[in-house]
Amino acid sequence: MRILYHLPLSPYSRKVRLALAEKRIPFELRVERVWERREEFLELNPACTVPVLVEENGLVVADSYAICEYLDEAYPDVSLFGRTLSERAEVRRLLSWFDNIFGTQVSRNLLWERHMKRQLGQGNPDGAAIRAGYQNLKAHMEVIGWLAERRSWLAGNQLSLADFAAAAHLSALDYVNDVDWTLNTAARDWYSRVKSRPSFRTLLTDRVSGMEPPAHYMDLDF
Amino acid sequence: MRILYHLPLSPYSRKVRLALAEKRIPFELRVERVWERREEFLELNPACTVPVLVEENGLVVADSYAICEYLDEAYPDVSLFGRTLSERAEVRRLLSWFDNIFGTQVSRNLLWERHMKRQLGQGNPDGAAIRAGYQNLKAHMEVIGWLAERRSWLAGNQLSLADFAAAAHLSALDYVNDVDWTLNTAARDWYSRVKSRPSFRTLLTDRVSGMEPPAHYMDLDF
Repeated sequence: MRILYHLPLSPYSRKVRLALAEKRIPFELRVERVWERREEFLELNPACTVPVLVEENGLVVADSYAICEYLDEAYPDVSLFGRTLSERAEVRRLLSWFDNIFGTQVSRNLLWERHMKRQLGQGNPDGAAIRAGYQNLKAHMEVIGWLAERRSWLAGNQLSLADFAAAAHLSALDYVNDVDWTLNTAARDWYSRVKSRPSFRTLLTDRVSGMEPPAHYMDLDF
Repeated sequence: MRILYHLPLSPYSRKVRLALAEKRIPFELRVERVWERREEFLELNPACTVPVLVEENGLVVADSYAICEYLDEAYPDVSLFGRTLSERAEVRRLLSWFDNIFGTQVSRNLLWERHMKRQLGQGNPDGAAIRAGYQNLKAHMEVIGWLAERRSWLAGNQLSLADFAAAAHLSALDYVNDVDWTLNTAARDWYSRVKSRPSFRTLLTDRVSGMEPPAHYMDLDF
């Protein structure tokens, strides 16, 4: 069986899970506690990050960018990148926006500083980073709202990996109750549409031990 | 004429320049002082980062990841990603390694903290970040040396975008004389081979006003 090594709150793992589910590619999930630096896992991915995909034929694909591009090439029936060069450029521009800029300015400051750092004995949360994270999240919710008001989906008329990347980050933040959904109605409505996809279901039923999500986390009409 | 908006010391711009030159795609370079946040440029790329490619037909491709994937799809004759799914997964794993991990741990700490920050009135360089940058660079030179000792090129038997991404970061750091080439012989020999490519020439003759590179910067036998 195809295996995806992941962590439940990793936005990058969530993006790949959504891509696999949208493409109806079956896979088995395995939690990888990357901080333990397990030797067999380091052989799969020396960067020691999740997600890592191991195909049934033994092919190892490490890194969420490499996995998503691989899935598009290996299983082209359902494309999450769009069809034309112009659509694909826009999807990838937004992927970079959410995975790099949003990832650094928001997810790292909140998920890592506020929730993971102390748990893993990496020191105390940095208050300034957490404040910056909330401030940046407000600005990013406006960007998402701006796109959602002008387009059917974030990258254009078609649902794409850009929607899943953005929703992956937001859903991980929502699990730890860090998203104020009253900030932007258009962003909330867009998220509600992505969250209603069947591909989203296993994300919403996942639980991290010792950490309960807020009541609205699973609610499709939040 | 096709236009590439860039900055001479941006490793991401350098990677795209090398990709364009290797594929023999003609283009005109324009320096974009991103910190001025020029309105016409923000319309091309709201993230206000370089590189941005504008094609002759008007298509705008922003972000170095999006540009490189676009070039591979639009001009497939010379592939810099490899041919098989397995080769392509390895090239992309290493692209992510150099552009994200090396980029954050080394290039940002040295190019940004040591050279750009004060010049752009963004405060004083952070000494701890600079020390971490040099320390991390040592570890990364070992990774490059390790790969170069075992393979013809970093991602395998074929020269690929992984070589150009790594060389793009190192060449920008070399311009500001931050690379100690005695650290790893295999890494130095590999870099010397990449540097000898005709595609590298315009990178080496570029000058940043008020900043002279060290004597060995242009030397192919350094």
